[in-house]
Amino acid sequence: MIGVDWGTSSLRAYRLDAAGGIIGRTASAKGILTVADGAFAATLRAEIGAWLEDGETRVLLSGMIGSRQGWIEAPYLPCPAGAADIAGALIRVIFDGAEVLLVPGLTDTDEAGTPEVMRGEETQIVGVPGMADDALACLPGSHSKWARIVGGRIASFRTFFSGEAFAALRSATILGRMMTEGPTDLDAFDLGLARAGDPGHLLHHLFGVRTLGLFGRLDAGDSASYLSGLLVGHEVGAAMPEGARVHLIGAESLCGLYARAIAARGGTAVIEDSDAAARGLFRIGSTASWI
Amino acid sequence: MIGVDWGTSSLRAYRLDAAGGIIGRTASAKGILTVADGAFAATLRAEIGAWLEDGETRVLLSGMIGSRQGWIEAPYLPCPAGAADIAGALIRVIFDGAEVLLVPGLTDTDEAGTPEVMRGEETQIVGVPGMADDALACLPGSHSKWARIVGGRIASFRTFFSGEAFAALRSATILGRMMTEGPTDLDAFDLGLARAGDPGHLLHHLFGVRTLGLFGRLDAGDSASYLSGLLVGHEVGAAMPEGARVHLIGAESLCGLYARAIAARGGTAVIEDSDAAARGLFRIGSTASWI
Repeated sequence: MIGVDWGTSSLRAYRLDAAGGIIGRTASAKGILTVADGAFAATLRAEIGAWLEDGETRVLLSGMIGSRQGWIEAPYLPCPAGAADIAGALIRVIFDGAEVLLVPGLTDTDEAGTPEVMRGEETQIVGVPGMADDALACLPGSHSKWARIVGGRIASFRTFFSGEAFAALRSATILGRMMTEGPTDLDAFDLGLARAGDPGHLLHHLFGVRTLGLFGRLDAGDSASYLSGLLVGHEVGAAMPEGARVHLIGAESLCGLYARAIAARGGTAVIEDSDAAARGLFRIGSTASWI
Repeated sequence: MIGVDWGTSSLRAYRLDAAGGIIGRTASAKGILTVADGAFAATLRAEIGAWLEDGETRVLLSGMIGSRQGWIEAPYLPCPAGAADIAGALIRVIFDGAEVLLVPGLTDTDEAGTPEVMRGEETQIVGVPGMADDALACLPGSHSKWARIVGGRIASFRTFFSGEAFAALRSATILGRMMTEGPTDLDAFDLGLARAGDPGHLLHHLFGVRTLGLFGRLDAGDSASYLSGLLVGHEVGAAMPEGARVHLIGAESLCGLYARAIAARGGTAVIEDSDAAARGLFRIGSTASWI
């Protein structure tokens, strides 16, 4: 089968053998926001056409491709939901020459009744091998997800806007004017992490990014790393129960920073295989009764 | 005398009689960031030249004009500081035909030793008539200030980045894509205020702005007001001691929103005269021994 993790800004396709082994992979920047005039079928064919010609007939898609801005809007499946629930709720899309199915996203509500949504992360979560039936997973990113797994199903999850808040604060405020490009400076990141544990609200701590710069206590080259640590520290402080073991799923560099924040707050981080999406697509695909 | 409140994006000048009455006023968008090549003297003369020709000889400036980006960088005065302390620390700038003095900003450090700064707000605070010797003042804005007044002096203060965070989240994130221009919708603002009191961190609440829109529970036209209420609610929740009486100093519309947030959290808001800057400049100017 072919599995495709198709998000807002990128597309990753995997050719999978009968045991779930990855025997081919492609990646491109053809995220759904770059596809004009709803040309999703043509875009998909351009990416995986060779594998189809080579005999593949089943394609499973996950991610924002199932959103209102995607190919077809797949209704959200409510939590709790596991691989079997998801496999039973796939949505078919029209495509010439192969069966193409869409993984639905999940929804939940927080303590106060505000809705939660994810698209794509559910597939990564069910793709982590060896995660205990009861576990806590974190998928860092623009909209970080923290998911509680109970009895092997995703029981509930919470989203944090940290990644997109970081980008906006950096690009559109006075804080960003001091910042330079470059890799994360771990010392400055750690200072931001520690700051997140100080008394006072995030909205107060943000102004400190400016004053520390003004008083020469934070170099221009370090202030982006400090802001990153501050936001990640706030997120982990709010999302992680004391002493928790957290499975991190996502890009290696970002998972490394989150692991640092989790350890600083007394938790244990386990960085998972970055091919979790491929493994989840295989697991859902093998459970599904293809139409 | 002439008092000038000269900030980043605007300049407000007042002609004051011997009793502090405002007998003339001008306002322009000639904030310090619009003044090219350090032409502060020429800009000032263009604004208040007529009053100088009419016999005024003393000019007192407050605000960001005393910052590194302004005319001369006036060193910050540490808290606690009152009108007399400020009047004793004025900085002279060279200007042909009048004595021009600059009000220094104030500095403080928070519980964790992070620096705090203000420029201009100290003048507004000392300009509020009838405020008790021990009081709490809030100056809402891009960088909101909460100042504790003890024995008639500014004892300490804290800054919240709420206004600039709002602008950045609105202009540079997916949350802003749903938002429309228009006056604040008070019902949506109140929903955001209430949301700020829910369990969960601000970074989690921010994602709710998106999901409430996605699920049709928040109209596009209301989401900016909801976000504003959410941020103001978080700020007031963090900054205001329970049941406090808060003197609000600033633009009338913004003070009205903050008063709503303060009342919703059990505090009492007093909206002060919006000419506090003029009154503060007069108070400092009358205390000063002009060079």
